[in-house]
Parts: sequence; C-alpha cells; structure tokens
Amino acid sequence: MADYRELWSKLGVDLEKHDELCAVLPKLYEGTYLTQENRPERMNYFNSVLAEIHGFRIKELDEHKKNGGKVVGTFCVFVPDEVILAANAIGVGLCSGSQFWVEDGEKVLPRNMCPLIKAFMGAKVGGTCPYFQSCDMVIGETTCDGKKKAWEVLNDYVPVHVMELPQMKREKNYDQWIGEIKDFIGKMEELTGNKVTVESLREGIKIINLKRRALKRLYGLRKYKPSPISGLDALLISQVAFFDDPQRFTEKLNELCDELDERVKSGMKDEGKKRVMITGTPMGLPNWKLHSIVESLNAQIVVEETCTGTRYFENEVDEKGETLEDLIKNIADRYMKINCACFTPNTGRIDDIIKYAGEYNADGVIDANLSFCHTYAVEHRDVERALKEKNIPVMQIETDYSTEDSGQIKTRVEAFLEMI
Amino acid sequence: MADYRELWSKLGVDLEKHDELCAVLPKLYEGTYLTQENRPERMNYFNSVLAEIHGFRIKELDEHKKNGGKVVGTFCVFVPDEVILAANAIGVGLCSGSQFWVEDGEKVLPRNMCPLIKAFMGAKVGGTCPYFQSCDMVIGETTCDGKKKAWEVLNDYVPVHVMELPQMKREKNYDQWIGEIKDFIGKMEELTGNKVTVESLREGIKIINLKRRALKRLYGLRKYKPSPISGLDALLISQVAFFDDPQRFTEKLNELCDELDERVKSGMKDEGKKRVMITGTPMGLPNWKLHSIVESLNAQIVVEETCTGTRYFENEVDEKGETLEDLIKNIADRYMKINCACFTPNTGRIDDIIKYAGEYNADGVIDANLSFCHTYAVEHRDVERALKEKNIPVMQIETDYSTEDSGQIKTRVEAFLEMI
Repeated sequence: MADYRELWSKLGVDLEKHDELCAVLPKLYEGTYLTQENRPERMNYFNSVLAEIHGFRIKELDEHKKNGGKVVGTFCVFVPDEVILAANAIGVGLCSGSQFWVEDGEKVLPRNMCPLIKAFMGAKVGGTCPYFQSCDMVIGETTCDGKKKAWEVLNDYVPVHVMELPQMKREKNYDQWIGEIKDFIGKMEELTGNKVTVESLREGIKIINLKRRALKRLYGLRKYKPSPISGLDALLISQVAFFDDPQRFTEKLNELCDELDERVKSGMKDEGKKRVMITGTPMGLPNWKLHSIVESLNAQIVVEETCTGTRYFENEVDEKGETLEDLIKNIADRYMKINCACFTPNTGRIDDIIKYAGEYNADGVIDANLSFCHTYAVEHRDVERALKEKNIPVMQIETDYSTEDSGQIKTRVEAFLEMI
Repeated sequence: MADYRELWSKLGVDLEKHDELCAVLPKLYEGTYLTQENRPERMNYFNSVLAEIHGFRIKELDEHKKNGGKVVGTFCVFVPDEVILAANAIGVGLCSGSQFWVEDGEKVLPRNMCPLIKAFMGAKVGGTCPYFQSCDMVIGETTCDGKKKAWEVLNDYVPVHVMELPQMKREKNYDQWIGEIKDFIGKMEELTGNKVTVESLREGIKIINLKRRALKRLYGLRKYKPSPISGLDALLISQVAFFDDPQRFTEKLNELCDELDERVKSGMKDEGKKRVMITGTPMGLPNWKLHSIVESLNAQIVVEETCTGTRYFENEVDEKGETLEDLIKNIADRYMKINCACFTPNTGRIDDIIKYAGEYNADGVIDANLSFCHTYAVEHRDVERALKEKNIPVMQIETDYSTEDSGQIKTRVEAFLEMI
C-alpha cells in the first residue's frame, strides 16, 4: 500500500492511527471471508475492492477532485444518490462498522449511544478514514435522535447539510420530502457549480435503478435452496454498493449473478443448513459480526430486511417524467416507501418481514439491533408478535461492535437453530 | 380516601396495585416536603392538592365527563393547552415521575429506555393512574425516538392522536406546525362535538397566558438572594400546573406570590446557601429526587431550564388577532420558541442557559438528564463548553427514578458545591 501514503497524507489522514486499522482489517477479512468454502469465482472482484479499500477508490475520488469534481459523504439510504450523480458529484456511504473508531467517537459523543454513530464520528475525529477525508461535504438526515444531534457535533469537523426526513407518511409529508429534495438539489448545485437538469437527473435515476436491479437479482438468487451464495458474501456486496462506482459495481455484480445462475442450473448440494433471515438495523462495513457467527454454525443467512439489505434496493424510481418536478416527485415517492423505524407508524416493515420470510423460505428470523437504538427496539414487540402469529420462530439480539458478547451470541444462536 | 374507591373502580383502576402507590406517596411527600423549614403559608394549597392527588381533581374530571365533557391527556409542553380549552375539554399532563410505574412499562417497552416513558406506559398498562384512566384520548408528539415509538404501543390501550413536531425551525417548519395545530383542532372538535371559534380560542389563550404569567412571577421571585421559596416547592408548583384547573391554579399561585412579595419586603436572612441552576430533561411528578438531594445540602435550586421549569411558561401567546388563522399562527409562533433538544440546531437553549444563569445569579449549574435520552446527552457538550467560557461551574448527572444511585449523586453534588 506504499503508493497511497502520500495521498492519505494529502487528505489529512492520521497515518499512524490509520496504520493500526490497516494492520487489522486484512486479517479480519481473511479470517471471515477467505476461509469460506466454495465461494463463487466472481467474488474476486469484491475481494480486490476490500484489498484496495483505502487505495483504489480513494485514488478515483482524488482524480475526480483534481478535475474539479466534488465528493459528498452520506450515512443513510434516504439520501437520494440520484441527485448526487445528477450534479456530477460522487457519493460515498460512510457507515462505519468497526469498533476501531468507537473510542475516538466517545471523545465527543456520549458513550451510551449507537455504535454506528460513534464509529462514524470517530472515523472523522481520529482522521482515520480516507473516504471521510475526501468529502467536500457530508449529508445528514433527521432519522434517529442520535444521528440528528450528532450532525451538530460533526459540523465542527466537516460541513454537514441536513435533510429533514418527515416522521410520518401522510400526503403532506410527501410534499415536505419533495421540498427537502429540492433544497438538497440546490445545495449540490451550489457545491458543484453544476446545474441539475431533467436529463442529468434522469441519467442519475437510471444508473441507480440499474444498481438496484442488480442487487434485486442477487437477492432473488438467494431464494433458492440452498442459496448459491453465502449471507456473508451477499452482505459484503451490499456494503460495497454504498461506496463503489455505481456502474462498475452493477457490471461486476451482474457478472457474479451470471455465475450464480449457472450454479443454480447445475444443481447445488443441499447440506441441510437452516435458512435464517435477519431484520433490523444496518450493518456498515466491516461489521460482519453476526453473519460470521451465524454462518459458522449450520446455517445460511438468506436475506436481510435492513438498510444494508432489502431496504437499500427494493423499489425503483419511476424514470418517466417530462419535468424536473416530475422526476423529483418520483424520487420522493420511491424513498418514502422505505420502511424505517424512524417513521410512525411503520406497519409496512412488519408486512415486509412476513413477506420476505415467506419468499426466502426462512426457517427462523433474527431481529438484530444495534445497542441504544430506541426505534427498532420498540418495534421488536410488533415484529415478534407478527412472526409468532405465522409460527415463524424469532429471536432478538441487541449488540454493538465489540467481540465481548460474541460467545454469548453464538450460544444463543446455536440454541435457536436447534429449536427451529 | 374511602370516598374515591368507587370512582376509581368505575375508571378501571387496578385498586390493589393502586393501594400500593397510595401507601407510598404520602410518606414520600411528608419526608421530602413537610420536613422543610420556613415554608410559605400558602404552600398549603399545594399540600392539599397532593393530599388529594387521586381524589379531588379526579372527581372534577368525572363531573365534567358526566356533563358530556371530554378529558385528554398530554405528555409534552409542545401540545397547545389553549386548543384543549377552546374545545371546552380538560387537559391533564400525564408525565409520570415514579419508579413505581417503571416495572409495568418494561412489560411492553425495552428496558434501556427513558424512565419517564416507561413510567407513563406503566401507569396505563398497570391501570394505576386515575388521571390516565379518565382520559378519552391522549395526545402524543414526535419529539424523541422513545416517545415517538411508544405511542404505537400506547395506542393498543387508549386512542392516541399524534402531533408531528417539526425537527427544525425554518420558515417552512412553522407552516408545518400550523398545519399540525389545525389537525389537532379538528381532532378536538371531533372528540368533543364542540366547534373551536375565534372567541373560544382567544379565551383559552388568555387563561393559559395568565397561568404562564403567574409562573413567571413565581420564578422572578426566586431571583432574590436568598430565594423566598425552595426549589422543591417551586418544582412542586410547576408539576401541579400540568394537571390542576388552570384558573384556580393561577389564583392560588398569585396568592402565594403575594406572600412571597411580603417575605422579600420584610427581608430574609441569607444563610449563605449556594445558588444552583438545573438544566435538562423534565421532572414529572413525583420526581423530586435531585431537588431533595441538592437542597438537603447547603444549597438552594433557584431555577430550572427544563420542561417542568422555564420552558413551560416562558413567552406568551399573542392574544391579538381577528381570525382563527391569526390566533393559530400566534400559538404556533409561541410554541416553536421552546428550545427543546429534539430540534436541530438548538443553540437557543444554550443562550437561555447562559441568560438564566446570569439572571438567577447561579453559583453553579447541574445538567441533569434522564437515562437514555440521546438528544439532551449530546447537547451536554455545548452546554458545558458555553458555561466554561463564562466561568460558570457545571456538572452533569444522568439518572433514572431509582434510589440506587442517590448516595453517589449526593457525594458528587456535595463535592461540586464545595468547589463552586
């Protein structure tokens, strides 16, 4: 990685701290991913993305900036990537999933807070994320209390534009969200100096829809018994989707899906692994904790009803429309379909969980939430009730990024798998 | 209290459990309040309110309902009481402040949640609060994550109308809030069968403004050295304000203030107690925990920048206006001035804290937040920074309703008082 030190230094990365992270990640990846048996050949692309995770893409961002382009960071699936593309900027998801960053985050945030939030804050405070360092601006949103207030702190370190996500889904809320998207467009135009036009927005919509379609295709293949791809690999792909070049990602993912189609056609030996569905809060890279525990046992994770799962790609944006107004409305409509627990009520999520549990033939469901997440924690009651009504076994896990409780989680999951 | 058992039974109160609460509260009140020295004579009215807390006012609510009237419960200072009065309904604040209710709340809510929320939920689930049982409807609001999602659970027990509070204070947010108030008016009209008119709304505004003025008068008297009234008594008065008949409360409070005026005029002996300001989350009745700890030491709490303090009464609603539209706008304007941490940004609160610390001559500030409250916990950083810049000593306490940490808190406050 010697090539990149100069670039990292230019970006203001704390090289010494960053070296610590660089020392740890490859081992974690190796132990988690490269030990899997019978991986699809075309996962090699994603292996290379991880091997180069703070190199290749960072260089691409740097080239883009050298040509006058802008880079914006995001933290949530509600932020319309289409708008970022339409302004000819590059968007990168900054959802930090490692315990490594939490300590620095706790310097400026309360300890009793979601680890994801503490991690992204720590990544910035500690200057150990080249993606973060590459951002000209980041986009926050009023989703949960933790994030909503964290932007106030983060704004001391990097300019934050906050989108106010409505908290309900009444007609007036759709209008409000349209207004927020318009403000966001204005902000992107101001940042980049580029005008967002009907053509550029439609182009952005098409690119992101194709990415969604590819992810939907991947997940569709996981419905087979057995799934031709592990949950770990599907999760990795979903995580890479947040920051890789959208068009290259789509191409590589479709190539992988071609290979998976072949696997299915050739017929796969069913090893009798239990089919597990995950629902809950997102798993930012490199949070592979739960997936690696579950798949180290006699089980396969076949779908995730999370923001790093179905909530990311389900539903496309309608590409039809004559005016900017039309397309913005289509974007608002698509994003308001996301069934995040920050909305009240959120019965759509319960419907999705039941639907996916059926479609993916789940033997059991794990409701997995990050610590201190009030919204998803309260929803567990309805999730459990709905699944029990359908006689679908469910267990709940509330955890953070540390490995302290991994043993305990493994024991509980083991018992759950034996029961289902 | 034998008189009320029939009424409580009719309301669906769990008499056995309620007896437990009734056994505990008078002792707590005695030990906390009646042991104070030199209490104003006219605190007797408030003594009687507490002595009759599940009796007298409950009977008034019952009479109102017998005459076809409606009772609505509220949980937040953002809900405009003016509208409730204008619809000829009675509003009661249901902010539960006792550990007694928490266990029942934890039957339906996650344990790692604000004790206030668990308590109000427990009061309903356990059927131990006659006020709750008297409500035809309750009004929720999208303030914090915990409350926002708790309404979904509470709605299984009692109809909840949720007002969507904006999360920012831009011009469009004022318009949104006006819309919410209009929806609320519609809901109250539907519930009561009464029309809200310019006259009835103006009347409601006047009544509540007079209540605010009386509280402002009370707090103004606390600026004297020493304050002619204890923080415990001022807190009690503020808590009673949430559920007592507004006009009687105002009258009795003004009578008390007349007596306090006399105290000030006569001159009071300054015992050299440290003057402490509280800022943070609300203290619902009977949460007297922090006040009783602080005032058992050589200190007097002189002001609370909380929802059961200044945020409740500061700023009046403009009474001038020709149309319903005018008055609704005035109401929206007044309520949007409340500097609650659920808004982003919330720099107005920092300004208020500095202002009040000066006006009330605070020797030190305690930033006191309920456990698991993310919004206020994150704001502590700015609160601390602002106070340190002004050389005003500050300490932070994060606590719930249990007495487990009371000893520890006392030790910390003692050290703080010695230091300031």
